[in-house]
Amino acid sequence: MREHVNKISIIGAGAVGATIAYAAMIRGVAQQYVLYDINRAKVDAEVLDLNHGLQFMPMATLHGSDDISACEGSDVVVITAGAKQQPGQTRMELAGANVAMCRSLVPSLMKVAPDALLLVVTNPVDVITYVVQQLSGLPSRRVFGSGTVLDSSRLRFLVARHLNVAVQNVHAFVAGEHGDSEIPLWSAATVGGLPLLGWSVPGRASLTEEDRARIFDDVRNAAYHIIRGKGATNYAIGMATARILEAVLNDEQRVLPVSSRMEGYLGIQDVCMSVPSIVNRGGVEAVLEQPVNEAEREGLRRSADTIRQTIRTLGF
Amino acid sequence: MREHVNKISIIGAGAVGATIAYAAMIRGVAQQYVLYDINRAKVDAEVLDLNHGLQFMPMATLHGSDDISACEGSDVVVITAGAKQQPGQTRMELAGANVAMCRSLVPSLMKVAPDALLLVVTNPVDVITYVVQQLSGLPSRRVFGSGTVLDSSRLRFLVARHLNVAVQNVHAFVAGEHGDSEIPLWSAATVGGLPLLGWSVPGRASLTEEDRARIFDDVRNAAYHIIRGKGATNYAIGMATARILEAVLNDEQRVLPVSSRMEGYLGIQDVCMSVPSIVNRGGVEAVLEQPVNEAEREGLRRSADTIRQTIRTLGF
Amino acid sequence: MREHVNKISIIGAGAVGATIAYAAMIRGVAQQYVLYDINRAKVDAEVLDLNHGLQFMPMATLHGSDDISACEGSDVVVITAGAKQQPGQTRMELAGANVAMCRSLVPSLMKVAPDALLLVVTNPVDVITYVVQQLSGLPSRRVFGSGTVLDSSRLRFLVARHLNVAVQNVHAFVAGEHGDSEIPLWSAATVGGLPLLGWSVPGRASLTEEDRARIFDDVRNAAYHIIRGKGATNYAIGMATARILEAVLNDEQRVLPVSSRMEGYLGIQDVCMSVPSIVNRGGVEAVLEQPVNEAEREGLRRSADTIRQTIRTLGF
Amino acid sequence: MREHVNKISIIGAGAVGATIAYAAMIRGVAQQYVLYDINRAKVDAEVLDLNHGLQFMPMATLHGSDDISACEGSDVVVITAGAKQQPGQTRMELAGANVAMCRSLVPSLMKVAPDALLLVVTNPVDVITYVVQQLSGLPSRRVFGSGTVLDSSRLRFLVARHLNVAVQNVHAFVAGEHGDSEIPLWSAATVGGLPLLGWSVPGRASLTEEDRARIFDDVRNAAYHIIRGKGATNYAIGMATARILEAVLNDEQRVLPVSSRMEGYLGIQDVCMSVPSIVNRGGVEAVLEQPVNEAEREGLRRSADTIRQTIRTLGF
Repeated sequence: MREHVNKISIIGAGAVGATIAYAAMIRGVAQQYVLYDINRAKVDAEVLDLNHGLQFMPMATLHGSDDISACEGSDVVVITAGAKQQPGQTRMELAGANVAMCRSLVPSLMKVAPDALLLVVTNPVDVITYVVQQLSGLPSRRVFGSGTVLDSSRLRFLVARHLNVAVQNVHAFVAGEHGDSEIPLWSAATVGGLPLLGWSVPGRASLTEEDRARIFDDVRNAAYHIIRGKGATNYAIGMATARILEAVLNDEQRVLPVSSRMEGYLGIQDVCMSVPSIVNRGGVEAVLEQPVNEAEREGLRRSADTIRQTIRTLGF
Repeated sequence: MREHVNKISIIGAGAVGATIAYAAMIRGVAQQYVLYDINRAKVDAEVLDLNHGLQFMPMATLHGSDDISACEGSDVVVITAGAKQQPGQTRMELAGANVAMCRSLVPSLMKVAPDALLLVVTNPVDVITYVVQQLSGLPSRRVFGSGTVLDSSRLRFLVARHLNVAVQNVHAFVAGEHGDSEIPLWSAATVGGLPLLGWSVPGRASLTEEDRARIFDDVRNAAYHIIRGKGATNYAIGMATARILEAVLNDEQRVLPVSSRMEGYLGIQDVCMSVPSIVNRGGVEAVLEQPVNEAEREGLRRSADTIRQTIRTLGF
Repeated sequence: MREHVNKISIIGAGAVGATIAYAAMIRGVAQQYVLYDINRAKVDAEVLDLNHGLQFMPMATLHGSDDISACEGSDVVVITAGAKQQPGQTRMELAGANVAMCRSLVPSLMKVAPDALLLVVTNPVDVITYVVQQLSGLPSRRVFGSGTVLDSSRLRFLVARHLNVAVQNVHAFVAGEHGDSEIPLWSAATVGGLPLLGWSVPGRASLTEEDRARIFDDVRNAAYHIIRGKGATNYAIGMATARILEAVLNDEQRVLPVSSRMEGYLGIQDVCMSVPSIVNRGGVEAVLEQPVNEAEREGLRRSADTIRQTIRTLGF
Repeated sequence: MREHVNKISIIGAGAVGATIAYAAMIRGVAQQYVLYDINRAKVDAEVLDLNHGLQFMPMATLHGSDDISACEGSDVVVITAGAKQQPGQTRMELAGANVAMCRSLVPSLMKVAPDALLLVVTNPVDVITYVVQQLSGLPSRRVFGSGTVLDSSRLRFLVARHLNVAVQNVHAFVAGEHGDSEIPLWSAATVGGLPLLGWSVPGRASLTEEDRARIFDDVRNAAYHIIRGKGATNYAIGMATARILEAVLNDEQRVLPVSSRMEGYLGIQDVCMSVPSIVNRGGVEAVLEQPVNEAEREGLRRSADTIRQTIRTLGF
């Protein structure tokens, strides 16, 4: 007799991990949650605070633990653990620290949750996704990163506010690295069925090249602005990750720009980066080759090279 | 002191009107509902059945009445009343009967709910929307019809199932008449960011011209098939109308192909028909001129002519 | 690798079966639905109408079939098929017809969906639940009926409206038969933490014995009133059943007055009837012995006798 | 023409204020939000982070400001601003600091949002609610505090987990002060219709006096435990406050233990504290006199005295 309910384990009880749990619980994404952290006092406090709101959420259970075996039987494991970039620390140093974390985490995860999909949120997310896939030995479709789902959501919000339309009517992707080399795919973007580049509605703002440049600049620097003001980002990444989890657990066949292993996309290989992809219960089912102009194509290749170089330097 | 909650009145307690109430109540679209019908026994029965499920829905109140003054203070009035097409009855006879209904309904509505937006669902919806706008004397943005929101949803479902992607990733509009002369705007349609006409994903079905013709044929004949099998359509139109109501009451600036008065769209004037439009708390805020190819443009003009001819014949 | 999504099969595409699908799909209860009926034209029409609204609902798939093997792999099978009471038909004749339907349905269901829970909605629901459990040979906890979940919801709505409080704050059960012999458990009922029988709030209506008698009378006769006005009930039972399905699939440990096999409850045995019960992913986990006064206890026993007599007469 | 959408302003962009915005936005509680803080960099960062997730939420707008006039036209203003208790600081010192904040905040609020309801979250919440009501001059029903909604939710969670039932089936209130002198109203509490004090279900845990004492101890010390582990509480209070806002804006007539001015409840006067109250679009509509035993009654009076003493010492 099968009596399955969905179980999500979240590795890391920092602001990102706890906010993912919060958003997912409010939305009713799964029925069982585990929040895991090596800092027991922290994980216990977050779990208490989350559970105390359960009366107002869809019914579920949430347990905290500093023992990785609590993740047993997970359908999805979300990896948020790891260092955050410190002032003065190079990007490579950050990557190195988090790769080291993965070297100890992934093998123990594979022992307790061999059937889980792995969703990587830890930064640099493309590098860590690649490393986790290698360390886990899982098929590449089953290991993917939150990638530019958040960056795309930022871009859409800014375009929507500029044009005064619902953000859900803006269809635009940021692709490539979740980081400085990322590329907005303006040429295929649409708003309410109109090509974004041709948007012209009497009585509404236009979207000039300067507007687009400024908007993308805001997207790329969003994390820096937020970190300067509040120390970390957590709300939007919490919501974006909850949305990815829904797409997976509900088997939605949903197009999301998650980070996954490229195997010939625009000629790009042997790296993880974000492109619009069909996500379902099995993970990344397919990647969609967007129509790109020459600049976008070149940008994506350079972005892939940037990520690959970091991966190589780290010995993967 | 202002203590406003949203009130929706639904005219007509047939399967469509009652199902709109059901879908809206489950989704929590408003806080007060009135279901009005001249058949008191019918409206009372529907209201009892709907209220008995209230424990499992967001809190709201629903009242039934055969007195139009129950609609006083409505934010939106949804008009679903009227005859349904009978076997042997011409389309024009149907239109005539429902126009006659509007001649008595609209003036009494204007007395009790002069500040309401009017959302027309009664068929032929484009004709009735035009007539209601004329009879009410309201600004054209405040009177609109459910139009091809349903037809577009049908098209998206069929495309999504064919391609095995989430229906929410298919962005395609059916425009023009909600009826036989309607036009699918294939040329601007997209799926997950790809132009629909260029869709090609390894390992997934393609969408040939034959596929598109068959799908559109199914869309145009959907109502006939459903009516033959179950006597009426109600579920999808209930959901579609609830969604339009959300867009209005939540002031979403949402693009939906509702039917509204054309004032120069592709040169089309003096008729109501559906084109992608921005819907907000004030009604139809703007229409979006989709890029169309020559065949689509011609088709939309012919569709407008068809509707206009019916309107003229009815003396409006 | 396990990639499970929840599957609900609904037997019977009448107004009740189709409305259950609609309510469940809007709420996002499961990811896969099957609607089964021996009338292929009817089931196809309902499925078309439901699927056409999918764009506005959480992603899911719905298939229609007249082949019972479509129910393979179901987590829950909801049985709504069967005759409705005809004018002039006795209750016993109705029961006999629906038992005959079960004799052919249940064995074929057991072949294709041996791991499913069975949720019975077909009337007389207590009798049919008993018969289905016997015919299926399943453990009694895995076969249960919608019972008085609907009657309790009706009672709560009427009390809430009388007292002008949220219906979700009224905690009162109707127990026993889903039918004429049912019993309202007033003595243990509470409203916002106050005993219902002692409700007294300055400036608000009181709830006299006459009020309670009238309210319960309305509950017991609700179906008759609704059927007289609209021919059938479907909205509230659709919502109530969707809510039971949520409690099961989300493993909620939720107290609901479903119908299940009594094994000593207040001394009652060998019959199915409704009492407040804990519902989870395994079905009916436990029944809760409410505090009852002598009249309520006697009423429940008589109600059990009534149901049991019908069961015996039918040869079970 | 009236085109109203609901507007919530949140005073204070700390973890509590921002998390209230997050929970309310995910749930779709209102259509317009303002987050106000004197620290412009902080409020801008929180608003960016929240807005970046808007794609995945019901459509709404959120603006940040350090100018109180941004709150103009609010339906509800949520006050979360103020100091948090520092190590070594007495409760009275905290109260004094936050009263001083109110002396400057409330008059400016009354100028820009005279029609708003005021929902106080700042601690000590009962004292601040009283002070804000006095300073505002508003009718007492229009000024209320989050009170023991959170404490009651904590109690319910712990009882539910102990008994293994859905938390939504536990109906128990913590009343009096939101603080050390609060009182659990065990004697009227119910679980799934059973009196909590008589809970006895074969095969399930019992709830002994020791269990209850331990559970209430955990409730009273919850904030301390959480603050020790993570520095502040935010998730549960965010959800609880979002739920109160829903009850208000949806005019739910919902029973919630908010803090409001006592005018003879169990003989208690001239103080704000939490008792089960009916909340609707006008604020606190009525308080419900729970049946209490002698110890509970005495406890509530002592709790009232404790709060009143602080109020008097502060000169109100």
